[in-house]
Amino acid sequence: MARYDAFDRYAADHMPAWTDELAAYCAIGSEQSDHEALRAAATWTADRLSRLGATVDVVALDDETVPPLVVGEIGSGSALNAVQHYDVQPGVPLELWTTGPYLPEVRNGRLYARGAADNKGELLARMWAVEAYLATIGDLPCRIRFLVEGEEESGSTHFGPLLDRRPGLREADGALIEGGGIDLRGRPQVVSGVRGMVGMELVCRTIAYDAHSSLATLLPSATIRLVRALATLWDDEGVPVVDGLEAGVRPPTPAQLEILGRIPDDEIEDLKHVFGVDRFVAGLSGQAAIRALTFHTTCNVQGLWSGYTGPGDKTITPAEARARLDIRLVPDQDPAVVLQAVRDHFSRRGFGDIEIVPFSFQYRAWWTPPDHPIVTAAVRVSEEVLGKPTIHDLSAPGTAPMHEVCAAGNVPTTSLGGADDECRAHAPNESFRLDYAEAAVRMTGRFFDAFAAIPRGSRSSG
Amino acid sequence: MARYDAFDRYAADHMPAWTDELAAYCAIGSEQSDHEALRAAATWTADRLSRLGATVDVVALDDETVPPLVVGEIGSGSALNAVQHYDVQPGVPLELWTTGPYLPEVRNGRLYARGAADNKGELLARMWAVEAYLATIGDLPCRIRFLVEGEEESGSTHFGPLLDRRPGLREADGALIEGGGIDLRGRPQVVSGVRGMVGMELVCRTIAYDAHSSLATLLPSATIRLVRALATLWDDEGVPVVDGLEAGVRPPTPAQLEILGRIPDDEIEDLKHVFGVDRFVAGLSGQAAIRALTFHTTCNVQGLWSGYTGPGDKTITPAEARARLDIRLVPDQDPAVVLQAVRDHFSRRGFGDIEIVPFSFQYRAWWTPPDHPIVTAAVRVSEEVLGKPTIHDLSAPGTAPMHEVCAAGNVPTTSLGGADDECRAHAPNESFRLDYAEAAVRMTGRFFDAFAAIPRGSRSSG
Repeated sequence: MARYDAFDRYAADHMPAWTDELAAYCAIGSEQSDHEALRAAATWTADRLSRLGATVDVVALDDETVPPLVVGEIGSGSALNAVQHYDVQPGVPLELWTTGPYLPEVRNGRLYARGAADNKGELLARMWAVEAYLATIGDLPCRIRFLVEGEEESGSTHFGPLLDRRPGLREADGALIEGGGIDLRGRPQVVSGVRGMVGMELVCRTIAYDAHSSLATLLPSATIRLVRALATLWDDEGVPVVDGLEAGVRPPTPAQLEILGRIPDDEIEDLKHVFGVDRFVAGLSGQAAIRALTFHTTCNVQGLWSGYTGPGDKTITPAEARARLDIRLVPDQDPAVVLQAVRDHFSRRGFGDIEIVPFSFQYRAWWTPPDHPIVTAAVRVSEEVLGKPTIHDLSAPGTAPMHEVCAAGNVPTTSLGGADDECRAHAPNESFRLDYAEAAVRMTGRFFDAFAAIPRGSRSSG
Repeated sequence: MARYDAFDRYAADHMPAWTDELAAYCAIGSEQSDHEALRAAATWTADRLSRLGATVDVVALDDETVPPLVVGEIGSGSALNAVQHYDVQPGVPLELWTTGPYLPEVRNGRLYARGAADNKGELLARMWAVEAYLATIGDLPCRIRFLVEGEEESGSTHFGPLLDRRPGLREADGALIEGGGIDLRGRPQVVSGVRGMVGMELVCRTIAYDAHSSLATLLPSATIRLVRALATLWDDEGVPVVDGLEAGVRPPTPAQLEILGRIPDDEIEDLKHVFGVDRFVAGLSGQAAIRALTFHTTCNVQGLWSGYTGPGDKTITPAEARARLDIRLVPDQDPAVVLQAVRDHFSRRGFGDIEIVPFSFQYRAWWTPPDHPIVTAAVRVSEEVLGKPTIHDLSAPGTAPMHEVCAAGNVPTTSLGGADDECRAHAPNESFRLDYAEAAVRMTGRFFDAFAAIPRGSRSSG
């Protein structure tokens, strides 16, 4: 442990300054729709990587509206791709924030701001680990390559083409998912994979324009039609019953089930407290809930709107109704096949007139076998720093473009980081707990050594 | 006919100036949410009535935020309440207007603006009829009392209390609904009643705040729950199947069915062309459609929203979902009973947790027997001016606060006016056809005489 004494002191001493730095980064509201803020965030990221000593390469497409990929490379030896992003989820609904999403504020040991955890905090913690390592230990034992994109929250639409511009970027010995997790009991969470996703907008149109609602007896309402179509997607318990939703699912292996079996029930039950519910969907609990969260394809409505939604009321029968679905995939599901399954589901039920517009992006899942040394390394350093047993899961319930980065080179991947289960990523009052930010720095510094010790060529199919 | 020659010439000569006047009135965007515009519209209305020679009384409540009731009375003899309004439906969605809702423009013989038909055009046509009558025939043969409120489009919430301030206002020999109708074939439409209405907002909450959608397998989505609850309100054809929705419905009489039987099928079938549909709900057509439109309680969703509805996407599982329903009633339905029926419907299906917030207003229906002389008079003058047989219906499919005005004195009511089936009331590109505006003036002038000729005391239960 003596190896990291100075490193850990450096991290502790620098947390106040680093917190200010994170606040400055988060003050840039780099939402998908704000091109100027995205440019500012890209520049901020490139500057910070330069100050770290990294070789910086800002990769752009000919289309200037596409946020560039900021690449920062430092160190030598085994190559580790840190897959990050500088864009953030939209801040809305603004009225639910205690302070504005882009007015970062420290309260009760947490920095509150959109992006504080997802992903600016996790990204900076990795940069801080490099800084502390260089300042207190010496040259990095491996080559860290930060791949920081600006479209992660809107689907990484151009991440592939941007990577294609620099063919070497996908060549690596390992990859880090954008961050990591710490549960409500302070236990590290390590995942060795991510979900895929296919998203779509449903558009239902019935009449030429909104009608006076007195005609509702005769005129087909787009709202009612979409509601009735959507209602066929789940059973009475809210469990998806889309025909073919599970197409392509690779059955769980005994090894996978064994890994899941080690996860204590409280890990999943604690989510009930976080979200204020007595019961999960379909009454799932314990191991059944853990397996469902890992292996089941989701079918989520992220938004739904029709008719008049402003203050007061407006007596119309709506001509149009829209909903956006996101469906999270597992290996080896093909987004195109699942998209077609949704189309077929609606067609078979007489809703073939509902237009389905796929999002401009889709992901496949990418799972590394849970006993791969890169995963074991992440588990070990996390436990060393947090002093508690790791919750190891096969996959994050969420999505990240790891398949895009890793599949060509069959690069093994793991998570590592400090965002806790109360960070409210994607929700109002997102925050990053600052003592966990410091813990993330400490685990990441140790991970550099652990990763460097893995024999090169330990690749493993995703 | 010679009696009206000068009257008709006066109307024809004045249409250009009157059109400008209507444009000026419509330029005031007197939506529910715009208190300043409502005040401006009230003042404009009172000024116009004064210039007409009416005795004007602006009735207000102690609460200054309540738009006043503008009363203008002129003439002597039998009293006729013209029940009007100076407020308008919201102009949104603005992007669907060719010109802005408050930038009135004449195109192809129509004045386009929010409120052009509903109700500023219909109101002004009645004032113009008074003006023309006084200028060309002489003193009015009856007493016209304009009751112009400013909350009609938001539920006439304070219409009752405002009327209560001047006890004499409900005493009358007859009442005119806010306007009238002309079908696509130029035939007058006369209705001898209006629907009631009960409206409500449904609020579904499941989790404490929006969750990252990767947790959709476990966390109950408010969107899905509301969709599933709503889906129980209609059958596969989109016909309402709410338990108790028809509570209190007075069965049709043979006389009523006979009146409906005279309505030609094309009257209803033409609506298909207007709204671009091949088929009405449940395949209704002809007499069945006419009866349904008249006698069936509706169950309409006027708006629905949940989760993220902005540009791009946001991968959340929503914590809250909302919908607004409006239900149009027939005699003798009680809004409170129907509201309770909806509550019970949801409770019985396990959706008792969905909060139901009634709108601040509710109406009962008010139907005058179709053979009452006031109705016959409206039919006769309409046919005289338009030269085509009247489509006579028992009730407007829409709602107006006639029960509030007429029930205490058992005052018979009819419609009369010029808004045609393409006027797009409540929708983008609302307009008033100017030759029909002129026709409305002409029929209204004749109606004054016809109404004055009805023996006083010919009241009839609504």
